[in-house]
Amino acid sequence: MERIITLMTDFGTKDGYVGAMKGVILGINPRCTLVDITHEISPQGVFEGAFVLGSAYRSFPQGSIHLTVVDPGVGTGREGLVVETEEYAFVGPDNGIFTWIYRNEKVTQVVGIRNKDFVRKPISQTFHGRDIFAPVAAHLSLGRDPGEFGVRVDTWSEIEIPEPRATDNGFTGEVIHIDRFGNLVTNLSRRLLDPFTHGEPLHIIMKGKRITGLRTAYGEARKGELMAIFDSFDLLEVSLMGNSAAEALKAARGDTVTLVVPERDAR
Amino acid sequence: MERIITLMTDFGTKDGYVGAMKGVILGINPRCTLVDITHEISPQGVFEGAFVLGSAYRSFPQGSIHLTVVDPGVGTGREGLVVETEEYAFVGPDNGIFTWIYRNEKVTQVVGIRNKDFVRKPISQTFHGRDIFAPVAAHLSLGRDPGEFGVRVDTWSEIEIPEPRATDNGFTGEVIHIDRFGNLVTNLSRRLLDPFTHGEPLHIIMKGKRITGLRTAYGEARKGELMAIFDSFDLLEVSLMGNSAAEALKAARGDTVTLVVPERDAR
Amino acid sequence: MERIITLMTDFGTKDGYVGAMKGVILGINPRCTLVDITHEISPQGVFEGAFVLGSAYRSFPQGSIHLTVVDPGVGTGREGLVVETEEYAFVGPDNGIFTWIYRNEKVTQVVGIRNKDFVRKPISQTFHGRDIFAPVAAHLSLGRDPGEFGVRVDTWSEIEIPEPRATDNGFTGEVIHIDRFGNLVTNLSRRLLDPFTHGEPLHIIMKGKRITGLRTAYGEARKGELMAIFDSFDLLEVSLMGNSAAEALKAARGDTVTLVVPERDAR
Repeated sequence: MERIITLMTDFGTKDGYVGAMKGVILGINPRCTLVDITHEISPQGVFEGAFVLGSAYRSFPQGSIHLTVVDPGVGTGREGLVVETEEYAFVGPDNGIFTWIYRNEKVTQVVGIRNKDFVRKPISQTFHGRDIFAPVAAHLSLGRDPGEFGVRVDTWSEIEIPEPRATDNGFTGEVIHIDRFGNLVTNLSRRLLDPFTHGEPLHIIMKGKRITGLRTAYGEARKGELMAIFDSFDLLEVSLMGNSAAEALKAARGDTVTLVVPERDAR
Repeated sequence: MERIITLMTDFGTKDGYVGAMKGVILGINPRCTLVDITHEISPQGVFEGAFVLGSAYRSFPQGSIHLTVVDPGVGTGREGLVVETEEYAFVGPDNGIFTWIYRNEKVTQVVGIRNKDFVRKPISQTFHGRDIFAPVAAHLSLGRDPGEFGVRVDTWSEIEIPEPRATDNGFTGEVIHIDRFGNLVTNLSRRLLDPFTHGEPLHIIMKGKRITGLRTAYGEARKGELMAIFDSFDLLEVSLMGNSAAEALKAARGDTVTLVVPERDAR
Repeated sequence: MERIITLMTDFGTKDGYVGAMKGVILGINPRCTLVDITHEISPQGVFEGAFVLGSAYRSFPQGSIHLTVVDPGVGTGREGLVVETEEYAFVGPDNGIFTWIYRNEKVTQVVGIRNKDFVRKPISQTFHGRDIFAPVAAHLSLGRDPGEFGVRVDTWSEIEIPEPRATDNGFTGEVIHIDRFGNLVTNLSRRLLDPFTHGEPLHIIMKGKRITGLRTAYGEARKGELMAIFDSFDLLEVSLMGNSAAEALKAARGDTVTLVVPERDAR
């Protein structure tokens, strides 16, 4: 079966961990196509992993299997899951890594991995990526039903995704991801702000700096200019043309972004 | 169609950007073979990207498609291109990233991407890698002619590649790339220097240090010794055995390398 | 032939070196499956490369070819090897990178690469990964016998793998690898220690810190707690829950780990 299996972990790329997972998968299904999303999630960075998965999974064709291992609870009682949605399947630990999936996709079943028939033996207590999740993803790619791997569960863990709050004159949001370029991705979505982007320019205030108006392309700004733009996932992003906004503003995930909407301000 | 598509970007590997591009490609052509050249080009590093592409593309078999996205002008008026040569096709922004290709390959057509039939909709203004270049590369890999993606263009952007200059007693060149090992790759080619390498040893002067003669293998030098050698792309390289020449000399791209040719010196 | 070729190098991922190797391989065998183990081995880190290869190769299915290029002696007289074992083949320089293979696998033949029919011409003196090892691995994946690439050799290089020593009241071992998480992997194996792990808890002493007893999962420890655990390769590992043990202890490869076995201590 020529199914796609994507891999996302916090294992980094300097050790043999990711290679070992791929070897296990190809031993079970030599015909699947392996695609790395990233292995550079910060160690134990469940929120970061959940966000990056959420930003990438929908670009893959229907039927793709997303294998996601950011797993601080490996070897403890936490459940391993197969999450089946109308278009995809997801395999990984039950720690909230799939929160964006639960919010955005139509979930058809969530299965706790209990069946030991499909796992590597002995199961180590430190590397379920290789011993449980990789073989389960590989067997899924051969066409097995998620239900074969264990029992349906009705509850699962989610992480808290910070929501923007309406204020008297606009919105308060926060930085939820910092990308490779130092762009500050916020939780302020195009859908939320769209009603207010057609009149007087918005003001975006971050770390004491005020940005007036939104750009529609990075290249519109001058070099060294701080700018705001909707990114390719329709989230408001604060960027510094030709440099890292995160470094220049000493910004971190969780930092507040204040939006002043002139129309509301007037009211 | 089992065509090869290589990917080179400045997106890094910690976000979902590269994964998203691959998902888009595999959704269009599940049978193509994806190969990463690198995603670690410095942000907006068009020169660096052009050099690395130039150093790698020729190792791939005829028919390979090289998808190259280092794109500071994304969302502005800059054109997107399909460059067809006798052996390969290249897809990416028109900003000079293909300069080495224009110099070294027989270009058969250069097409500005205008046809919206093959792109993802809506097109974001920040991620043409996913929305335009990836789908175009994927459709190319299915056998479409470059002309189907837009209109032939007669002009395109090139970056300036610094040329070595002849001096009274040799040549002056410069560092054009620093690799992972800290090796300093210069623009002084074997072809240029070959006539002068069979007599008395050359002198290479860099950052006030003088190197006498060329080595033919890294392992010929003693640990900690500065050396000069023709690299695997036949460019003169300054290396420090067992360490980073770039760090030891505090060297950067653009730094001058002076070559003294004894035969010329005598004249 | 749909064989797997894994790649492990110290080339990093910022240059075109790895891409060039893959291009050469796919030009010879377009149907092989390429899997990266890692390219982040420290420059010239033969010991590190040997360890990481040793930790990953066995996860791959029988018939896989492991292409391993950490090669400080490139261009000197050192031999290039094809090492055939009952289950795998290995291709790379003869500098000890295959030491764990020689110890753990049943070697059926070791061939010095001498036949120039299968290599890229001209052979550079700085990049045998592209010019010799990649084409040899690719031709191997097409089903050629290792013997076709040269002559059988009876001796080869090995690196010294430090062995634990028994002491009056336990064992002395050392750190042999530090992984991405800052976990300190030691040479003290489960097999060695198993007889002593069922009675009174062991004491592990490292950098003046004493750890009492072994954990069976990372998640059993409190955040910030130093712990010892058998890792997924059955080696004793010193870890710091939620942080890097290597940074906290300023530990490096070669650092001593002392094990006190109460049963022995009593004697």
